[in-house]
Amino acid sequence: MTAPAELSPTLQLACDLIRRPSVTPVDADCQAQMMNRLGAVGFQLEPMRIEDVDNFWASHGNQDGPVLCFAGHTDVVPTGPVQQWQHEPFEALIDADGMLCGRGAADMKGSLASMVVASERFVRDYPDHRGKVAFLITSDEEGPAHHGTKAVVERLKARNERLDWCIVGEPSSTTLLGDVVKNGRRGSLGAKLTVRGKQGHVAYPHLARNPIHLAAPALAELAAEHWDEGNAFFPPTSFQISNLNSGTGATNVVPGELTALFNFRFSTESTVEGLQQRVAAILDKHQLDWSVDWALSGLPFLTEPGELLDAVSASIKAVTDRDTQPSTSGGTSDGRFIATMGTQVVELGPVNATIHQVDERILASDLDLLTEIYYQTLVRLLA
Amino acid sequence: MTAPAELSPTLQLACDLIRRPSVTPVDADCQAQMMNRLGAVGFQLEPMRIEDVDNFWASHGNQDGPVLCFAGHTDVVPTGPVQQWQHEPFEALIDADGMLCGRGAADMKGSLASMVVASERFVRDYPDHRGKVAFLITSDEEGPAHHGTKAVVERLKARNERLDWCIVGEPSSTTLLGDVVKNGRRGSLGAKLTVRGKQGHVAYPHLARNPIHLAAPALAELAAEHWDEGNAFFPPTSFQISNLNSGTGATNVVPGELTALFNFRFSTESTVEGLQQRVAAILDKHQLDWSVDWALSGLPFLTEPGELLDAVSASIKAVTDRDTQPSTSGGTSDGRFIATMGTQVVELGPVNATIHQVDERILASDLDLLTEIYYQTLVRLLA
Repeated sequence: MTAPAELSPTLQLACDLIRRPSVTPVDADCQAQMMNRLGAVGFQLEPMRIEDVDNFWASHGNQDGPVLCFAGHTDVVPTGPVQQWQHEPFEALIDADGMLCGRGAADMKGSLASMVVASERFVRDYPDHRGKVAFLITSDEEGPAHHGTKAVVERLKARNERLDWCIVGEPSSTTLLGDVVKNGRRGSLGAKLTVRGKQGHVAYPHLARNPIHLAAPALAELAAEHWDEGNAFFPPTSFQISNLNSGTGATNVVPGELTALFNFRFSTESTVEGLQQRVAAILDKHQLDWSVDWALSGLPFLTEPGELLDAVSASIKAVTDRDTQPSTSGGTSDGRFIATMGTQVVELGPVNATIHQVDERILASDLDLLTEIYYQTLVRLLA
Repeated sequence: MTAPAELSPTLQLACDLIRRPSVTPVDADCQAQMMNRLGAVGFQLEPMRIEDVDNFWASHGNQDGPVLCFAGHTDVVPTGPVQQWQHEPFEALIDADGMLCGRGAADMKGSLASMVVASERFVRDYPDHRGKVAFLITSDEEGPAHHGTKAVVERLKARNERLDWCIVGEPSSTTLLGDVVKNGRRGSLGAKLTVRGKQGHVAYPHLARNPIHLAAPALAELAAEHWDEGNAFFPPTSFQISNLNSGTGATNVVPGELTALFNFRFSTESTVEGLQQRVAAILDKHQLDWSVDWALSGLPFLTEPGELLDAVSASIKAVTDRDTQPSTSGGTSDGRFIATMGTQVVELGPVNATIHQVDERILASDLDLLTEIYYQTLVRLLA
């Protein structure tokens, strides 16, 4: 284990943050520590506690030029069974292989430390930089996410805050730091389908209408449907039924109702309304007595190649000599809320192989490289 | 309400039995009361308590001639919410419309009273009748039915007891007493199907195999399959999925497994092995990773027109002037166990419109007619 004094500023801050057990939505003073650091180099600080969630907004610079915002979350997912961890999850040690171990190392306290250290250095090196460096930090990304980034974005919109570029510190890298950045995400559209039949006795099927029998061909058709081809940035829209339930538990009763939960991860080639209409058409074609409750989790967003993606890619290349791969695959992130401000959004962070698992860890030296990439991006865009 | 003194012997005994709250597998001395009555007219009595279930066998006559057995059960299903009953379920009163009200009135304490009174009268009127009159009574027909009729039949078989004809007192009538008798029942074959996929994240469907998507076309094909045409005595074999479950509850997880409970009610045109093979063929055709646990509840049985059915039909015609309709529809009954002895089995009892419901009731006067039908059948077959 490396002695604290030998650690880089980024690793010192990362360890400090990991040692604060900030399981969603608890912040455990991570944000206070970040604000201390940013305030000390001249950032204007604006804590925004909304309901039970700590958030803050901070900025340095002036309104006239472009605004580059770092976004992220201080909350982490639960540890799971602690006895399965090789090291205490909130101890934050660097093991013999040079891995920084602990809950949040990858997702995403390491990135938070890199953002803070890169910004400290940037405002010291370029005190009169153009535009604005900002931070949008929440403690509820892993949870319901109602009072986190989404709510902060609403406040920023209400006061006409402009946000040109955003780097979200989500762990985007797949095997090597910077190999992948996320330049968009698919939309997510959830639904609960109810198909009604008529309950009865298994021995008298002619008096019942079995919703399982009625729905099966429609579910088969929905599962086989080709929704779109995707495009240069998005894979084809996918449809998955996550839960399917029908039956009273009794083996001699024909159930009266079937429910299915399903989810679309959809590209910019499909629309919410279009998907809803096509689902309805298939259900109607099978003459079902159906209803669907729709729940839109997030519209798809896309940051096409341009200033932000160019600056990020060039910085990765300069620091790691890697050609980064923009990707829109994977789950949702808070980037979807920020994108609604018309912002170019890119997610760039450490390797995500161990996130949400026991023994979450990243190569410690990657964090110093990440700080350098963030710093060079700041220089490219705001120096 | 009619005063007890004015009631016929059958109705007095029916009320006595209903007032004993014999919810499965409790007998509440119903069988003791029946044995008292049968013993008093010369029946040989053989109580057979098997595990926690009271049963008895009783007979009058000699081995040389044919054996006619009355079969039935003293147990009743639970009352359900008592406050929804118009009258106390175990009070056994006859209301202003002449209905005998109470749990078990139709299923099947009314029939038990008719059997006992008809047999009392028959052995008094024909003390030297040919063959044997017998009773096979259980207190576990509505429950698991492991230690009831099935177990008694095994003991009777073990000692080579012969049983030519059997009248089961199940409420077979649909709207008017005697309009329908059951001369067989379909078989019942249950199964639990498991279809295995591979669990994963909804956002990464290419890494998962969704068992709901895989199974849906196979379930649709099973539901649409035409298993047989039935025959003169049986409706076509029916297939019903009673329960279908898959999913972790989470909306972002592709489940790893799907389970379906299904049931065949099958005619004598299909066999257990044939149905199993056809299900397997459909599941294999859809290339599923599947397994099925089969549970055979009962083979189909059929009593073709002959001595027993003729005697029963003629007695119904003589007493009610109705042409009875033999039928094999409906659920299973203990008749399936007795039929395995090579016995002709007919179910004949009161109107079944209110069985298992609140306010179970039958026309009180139907029980006196039923006693007369049972008596005339005894005369036709054994006088």
